[in-house]
Amino acid sequence: MVEQDFAVVEDTGLKARTTFQATRQAAAAVRNLGDSTKAELLNNLAERVLAQRDFILTENQKDLDRMDDSDPKKDRLLLNEKRIEGLAQSLRDVAQLPDPSGGVLLERTLEQGLKMQKIAVPMGVVGVIYESRPNVTLDVAALCLRSGNACILKGGKEASFSNACLVQIIHESLDKFKVPAAAVTLLPTDRKYTQEMLTATRYVDLIIPRGSEALIQYVRKNSLVSTIETGAGVCHTYVEKSADLEKAAAIVVNAKVSRPSVCNSLDTILVDRAVVKDFLPKIKDGLAAHDVEIFADEIAYQILQSVDYPFLQKAQPEDFGREFLDFKCSVKVVDGLTEALAHIQEYSSRHSEAIVSEDTEATETFLSEVDAAAVYANASTRFTDGAVFALGAEIGISTQKLHARGPFALEKLVTEKWVVRGDGQVRA
Amino acid sequence: MVEQDFAVVEDTGLKARTTFQATRQAAAAVRNLGDSTKAELLNNLAERVLAQRDFILTENQKDLDRMDDSDPKKDRLLLNEKRIEGLAQSLRDVAQLPDPSGGVLLERTLEQGLKMQKIAVPMGVVGVIYESRPNVTLDVAALCLRSGNACILKGGKEASFSNACLVQIIHESLDKFKVPAAAVTLLPTDRKYTQEMLTATRYVDLIIPRGSEALIQYVRKNSLVSTIETGAGVCHTYVEKSADLEKAAAIVVNAKVSRPSVCNSLDTILVDRAVVKDFLPKIKDGLAAHDVEIFADEIAYQILQSVDYPFLQKAQPEDFGREFLDFKCSVKVVDGLTEALAHIQEYSSRHSEAIVSEDTEATETFLSEVDAAAVYANASTRFTDGAVFALGAEIGISTQKLHARGPFALEKLVTEKWVVRGDGQVRA
Repeated sequence: MVEQDFAVVEDTGLKARTTFQATRQAAAAVRNLGDSTKAELLNNLAERVLAQRDFILTENQKDLDRMDDSDPKKDRLLLNEKRIEGLAQSLRDVAQLPDPSGGVLLERTLEQGLKMQKIAVPMGVVGVIYESRPNVTLDVAALCLRSGNACILKGGKEASFSNACLVQIIHESLDKFKVPAAAVTLLPTDRKYTQEMLTATRYVDLIIPRGSEALIQYVRKNSLVSTIETGAGVCHTYVEKSADLEKAAAIVVNAKVSRPSVCNSLDTILVDRAVVKDFLPKIKDGLAAHDVEIFADEIAYQILQSVDYPFLQKAQPEDFGREFLDFKCSVKVVDGLTEALAHIQEYSSRHSEAIVSEDTEATETFLSEVDAAAVYANASTRFTDGAVFALGAEIGISTQKLHARGPFALEKLVTEKWVVRGDGQVRA
Repeated sequence: MVEQDFAVVEDTGLKARTTFQATRQAAAAVRNLGDSTKAELLNNLAERVLAQRDFILTENQKDLDRMDDSDPKKDRLLLNEKRIEGLAQSLRDVAQLPDPSGGVLLERTLEQGLKMQKIAVPMGVVGVIYESRPNVTLDVAALCLRSGNACILKGGKEASFSNACLVQIIHESLDKFKVPAAAVTLLPTDRKYTQEMLTATRYVDLIIPRGSEALIQYVRKNSLVSTIETGAGVCHTYVEKSADLEKAAAIVVNAKVSRPSVCNSLDTILVDRAVVKDFLPKIKDGLAAHDVEIFADEIAYQILQSVDYPFLQKAQPEDFGREFLDFKCSVKVVDGLTEALAHIQEYSSRHSEAIVSEDTEATETFLSEVDAAAVYANASTRFTDGAVFALGAEIGISTQKLHARGPFALEKLVTEKWVVRGDGQVRA
């Protein structure tokens, strides 16, 4: 297994560079696979994953055995029959997506009859750094291969047996289609390899960190390779004074409790002073049913106390701009749209932001002024998702503005290349 | 003037943040200008530049007076009547370009009837770091304003009087259209401000370094803000064995001598062993006429020596992968396409690469396998240019793969935003 190959090597830097170089060379082989071959390869991989389910479960069990039962990551690490079937289905779904590479984006005849084309080409080598979920290993490999890219995977230590086993199965499919195994390279879990990858500008074209805010900050600070940050979401929902308060309550409760561990879940409720007394009692039961702890500003605290909200705290300054990722949220009362916009500009991580309002002008101002990847009127921020947005399997949700913003998928794993054909032309 | 405002301030960090914050706020005003207003503003600016030519020439002279006559940067710094007319014409040209912001890129109805749009929106605040040419000040400001962005300019010390004067004129136009002056902010030349801008992730959305390789490396290493590298060009031309050697000679000479100081000029000639004896004598006169110094590998050295090439050196390893930016180039003899591709993969900066060949298969392999922003068959690499590619005024030539690759213009100064309108929808 890849893991063991590396374990005996002393000079991480040298070994890493040799590895990256092999992946760079394998990228050419992947780029030259035809559209239908890439689809066949992924369907073949889906078959193999199903056929080797016992092997996968055995290796996954080794990872599970090392983790404490109380660890919340245990469920994300777990594979079972049903999840393995889901993995195979995902591979088949990606196989059916259109190939984003090879298309002619622009065609022009330039001065002196030069023929110019701008074409979509694979990125080359894509590095992905991720944490405990082993399904990411298959998802990323599938998306990269589908778009003609090689990839370097840096998974979490806690999933090392699962990841190594899945990559071994991927290598069997690659081998069948005469693609070098290095086209999907799993790095050892030693953090030194992350550092090596972040500086390997000649071998790696793009790095995507998927994981905690700490990981993303580390990558931002240390990477010399271009990155797409898939990041933290500090998400607000603003209940404007004209809001239908029943709708507002349903949206706020959904945005908080439907899946608090994900980046598009609600962190802070902004409520217009004009409606705060009527509004807060309406979310009391919905939030209390999930033991949601509320960090409330002074006015909100008094109102929630008066209705005996059971999990109430006084908000501290650090409770605003905080990504809770838990059954917790903060509440702030604002004097209208301008203050709400200023608060969001100050504290948002520019992921997903919502307004609930029946006033068209206020709504459109909010949608236009708020600088975030996704902005909502009268809907839950929880909808920010590649599958919901009908993009196909999602690589991540980008919180940066270059190249990909918001949920992004296969189509963003390509770059452009200008091809110019002449007959001896020189520039004046 | 901006320059003097800053001179009294001690705490660079604090002053810089206040400045960036003002630009961030001004960005909203620019974003909300209508298409025709932005065009009018730039036409107004063109008028003002012409009307104030004496002021511009006086301030430019102060910069020129500080520079030694032998400095090759002096010509780039110089403004005269004709160049000022060119600046005004550029502004009018940008005014006529279509506004890249505001367009709906995608429209879908999602689950539960949610209406989703992906729209093109301005980046927000664009930072540009550049060196001696004062025309960049107007070009960048114009492109940013046209696309609805504010900008922060960090020009070179040697052009500080010229830049401050041009920004003052820009501010007059902004004032006429009720846009805050901070929408186009010129930073003091003190390098500390560059460092502050590179870490101002909350206020600056994109940084574009335009200049030397040293500047670009510094930015790559230190920036926490997303960047588009407009970079160094280590450009090869490969003379394949089937090449029409007359065409090849014309292309190689043009690629080297027509403007050696720019990034798309030739650095290394790769010649097939089968034709090297016939080929090198054909470039002798064309290169010698410009005193081009050739750093030749052993075989090429012998051939060039036998025809008495006057400016001949033995190539050292560091002469390959070197960007000369001067009347200098290196020559290497290769054993066919495979070796040429391997050399380019190892040494190219992925800017512009060319093959000269009459063999369609070799040509297409080259165009497909070479990983560069622009690849050429039977033409000079000197064509890599936004104006030549008919993109309108160029911001730079990107050597990275994310967002913009090769010559890029106005259309790349926007990002995407997902706007979702609902009626109370929550996620299951």
